[in-house]
Amino acid sequence: MFDIRFLHRTGFAITLLLAASSVAAQFQPFQPLPAQPPIPADNPQSALKIELGAQLYFDPRLSVNGTVTCNTCHNLLAGGDDERPLSIGATGVVTARNAPSLFNVGYYTIYFRDGRATSLEAAIEEHLADEVVLGNKSHDQVLARLRKLSAYGEEFAKVFGDGEISGKNVAQALAAYLRSMNTTDSAFDQYLRGRTAAISEQAKSGLKLFNESACASCHFYVNMAGPVPGLAFQMGEGFYELFPNFVGSEYDTRYQLMADIGRYQVTKIDTDKRMWRVTSLRNVATTAPYFHNGSVANLDEAVRVMAKVQLNLTWTDQQVADVVAFLQTLTGEFPRVVTPRLPTPNDGTVYQN
Amino acid sequence: MFDIRFLHRTGFAITLLLAASSVAAQFQPFQPLPAQPPIPADNPQSALKIELGAQLYFDPRLSVNGTVTCNTCHNLLAGGDDERPLSIGATGVVTARNAPSLFNVGYYTIYFRDGRATSLEAAIEEHLADEVVLGNKSHDQVLARLRKLSAYGEEFAKVFGDGEISGKNVAQALAAYLRSMNTTDSAFDQYLRGRTAAISEQAKSGLKLFNESACASCHFYVNMAGPVPGLAFQMGEGFYELFPNFVGSEYDTRYQLMADIGRYQVTKIDTDKRMWRVTSLRNVATTAPYFHNGSVANLDEAVRVMAKVQLNLTWTDQQVADVVAFLQTLTGEFPRVVTPRLPTPNDGTVYQN
Repeated sequence: MFDIRFLHRTGFAITLLLAASSVAAQFQPFQPLPAQPPIPADNPQSALKIELGAQLYFDPRLSVNGTVTCNTCHNLLAGGDDERPLSIGATGVVTARNAPSLFNVGYYTIYFRDGRATSLEAAIEEHLADEVVLGNKSHDQVLARLRKLSAYGEEFAKVFGDGEISGKNVAQALAAYLRSMNTTDSAFDQYLRGRTAAISEQAKSGLKLFNESACASCHFYVNMAGPVPGLAFQMGEGFYELFPNFVGSEYDTRYQLMADIGRYQVTKIDTDKRMWRVTSLRNVATTAPYFHNGSVANLDEAVRVMAKVQLNLTWTDQQVADVVAFLQTLTGEFPRVVTPRLPTPNDGTVYQN
Repeated sequence: MFDIRFLHRTGFAITLLLAASSVAAQFQPFQPLPAQPPIPADNPQSALKIELGAQLYFDPRLSVNGTVTCNTCHNLLAGGDDERPLSIGATGVVTARNAPSLFNVGYYTIYFRDGRATSLEAAIEEHLADEVVLGNKSHDQVLARLRKLSAYGEEFAKVFGDGEISGKNVAQALAAYLRSMNTTDSAFDQYLRGRTAAISEQAKSGLKLFNESACASCHFYVNMAGPVPGLAFQMGEGFYELFPNFVGSEYDTRYQLMADIGRYQVTKIDTDKRMWRVTSLRNVATTAPYFHNGSVANLDEAVRVMAKVQLNLTWTDQQVADVVAFLQTLTGEFPRVVTPRLPTPNDGTVYQN
C-alpha cells in the first residue's frame, strides 16, 4: 500500500501523488462529480438491486426493535446525516463518532472515519451486526426478521444468483442503492465546467485561499476528499490525515479533538495516532455539526478550527467567510428520494415488547 | 351528543342509527372509500400545505433529539403504523398504547383510541408536546427548532394567513397531509362497485359471516369504523364500543385486555370503562399486532378473540379463515410516498449531545 500521509501533510501531496500517477499529465485537481462512482466488479448496479436497496435502507426491521432505519442516522431527505453530534442507536446508546453523510459515499476507498472497512459492502455488513447502531447481536438476528417477509424472498431471488437473504446480499443491495445517491451539478461543478458566474466573487476568493493555504492538498478531486478508487488508490487503500496536525491550540481542549485517536484504535501503530480518513467536503454546508466527534456546531467555526489545527493559520473573519462562501458552492443537486413500499409480514408482527 | 353505544352493542346499531339519519333511505352499510375524507372548513387542503405537511411528517427535528419522525411510529411506507405492540418514543420511553395506522385517518370523528382529541389537528397538537412521543415538554421547544430553518419560515408564510410557525399551523399542515393519505381501490371497494370477482368465494363467505355475526354493527361504512364526519356524527362525536364486551374468556388475562380501561381515563364516567373508539378495519392485514395494547400478534388470532369477547362466539378455524380472507380484501392501494427535501439549518446544527 502506497502511504502518502507524510507527503500530503507537507502540502505537496497533490504534486507528489500525481507524479506517481499515470494520469498526471492531464490531471486537474478539481473535477465535476460524475453521475456515478466507480462500481466494483463483484457488485454491478441494476435497477432491481437499487430498488431492493432502497427498501432495505428505509426498513426499520433492520433494527432490533423497529425504531431505526439506515435513514435515521444517514438521512437522505436532508444532508445525508442526522444533524446530531453523535447518533443515538436503536436501543438508546450513543455512538462513539459523528455519522457522516452517505451522499457520494461510493467515492471513498475506505470506510468509517478510521478506515476499518475496506469496502462499502464491508462497512454495511459490520453495521448490520453493530449492537450500538441497529441493536443486533448478529447477522442472523436481522436476517431472521427479513426472512419473515416473503416479498423480500422473491426480490432477493430475482436480484442475486444465490437468491439468499444473506448479510452479504443485504449489504450488496444497500451499497448499490447508495452508489446511486450522488449530488451532481453543484454551483462549483458548474463553475468547473466553465460557467464562471456560477459562483460568487466571494466564493472565488475563498477558493483561492483554499488552494493557496493547501486545504486542497487533502480536499481535492471529484469528491473533495482526495483519491477515488482507481485514481492512484485502489479500494481499501486509505487517504488519511493527521487531525489535529498542529497540536496545542485552544481548540484541542475546547472541542476535545484528541480524546479519540482515530485509526490507531484499528492498527495499534503509533504513527496512526490521530490519523483520520479525509472527509468529503461536498454538501458540507448541510452536514453540521462537524468533525469526528461532532463537537463544532457551525461551518464558520469548523473552517476557523481547520485553518488553525491543520495549517497553523489564524484566519480573519473575512477569510473564514470567503472560504465558507466557497464551501457553500459544493452543495449539489440532491437526488429525489422516492421511498419504497415496505413488505408486510406474512404472519403477524416481527416485534414483541 | 347522540350516544349510540348501548344501541350498537345490541347489533341493531346500523338500523337505529340510520332511522335517525337523514340519509337512511339510500344508505348502504358498506361503501367504497372516496379519494378524500371530509375536509374541515377551517383547514382547507392546498398543494403547498400538503407539501409542507409532508416535510414536517418526515422531519426528525420535530423530536427533542432528532431521532424520531411522525413516520417512525406511523410508517406510511408500510401499513401506516410501526408493527410494534407499543411504540418507543424519542427518549426511549415506551408508549401506553399501540400506534394506530394513519392511513384514512381523516374519516374518524374523534382521535386517539380513547377519543380524547376532538379533531385530527387537536391530536397532532397534543402529540407535538408529548414527552413520551416526541420528547418535547412544550410546543415552544419544537417551534424553536423549526424557526431555525428559514426555509420553513418562507413556506409557512406562503401557506398560512398569519404566516407563523405555530403549533396550530404545524398541526394544520400535518393534518392536511394526512387527509391526502388514503388507500382507495381495495379489492372490497372494487367488489362494492360491482366487480364481484374482485374478492374470492372464501372472502364472500367471510363477509357473510361478518355481517350475520354483527361485526358490521361497529365496522361499517366507508372506513369500516362506523360513522364519519357528517354522517350521523359530527366531528368530535365519538363512536365507541365496549371491549371486551363479554368478560370472562381466557383472552382477558392472556392478552391483558382489561388492564387499560380506555375512555374512562378521560371522562371518569363509570359507563366509559372499557369503552374504545371503533378502529378502522381498512388495511388491517398490514397493521399487526392488534388491539389497544398490541397484545395479539396475528390477524387470525385477533379475529378469534374479537368473535369471543365481542360477540360471545367461538368460531371454527374455517370461520376464522373466512373472515381473515374477507379482511385481506380491505387492503387498499397505498399512495406513493414521495419524500420531501428537508430544510437545512441556517447556522449549524439544532442538536447538542
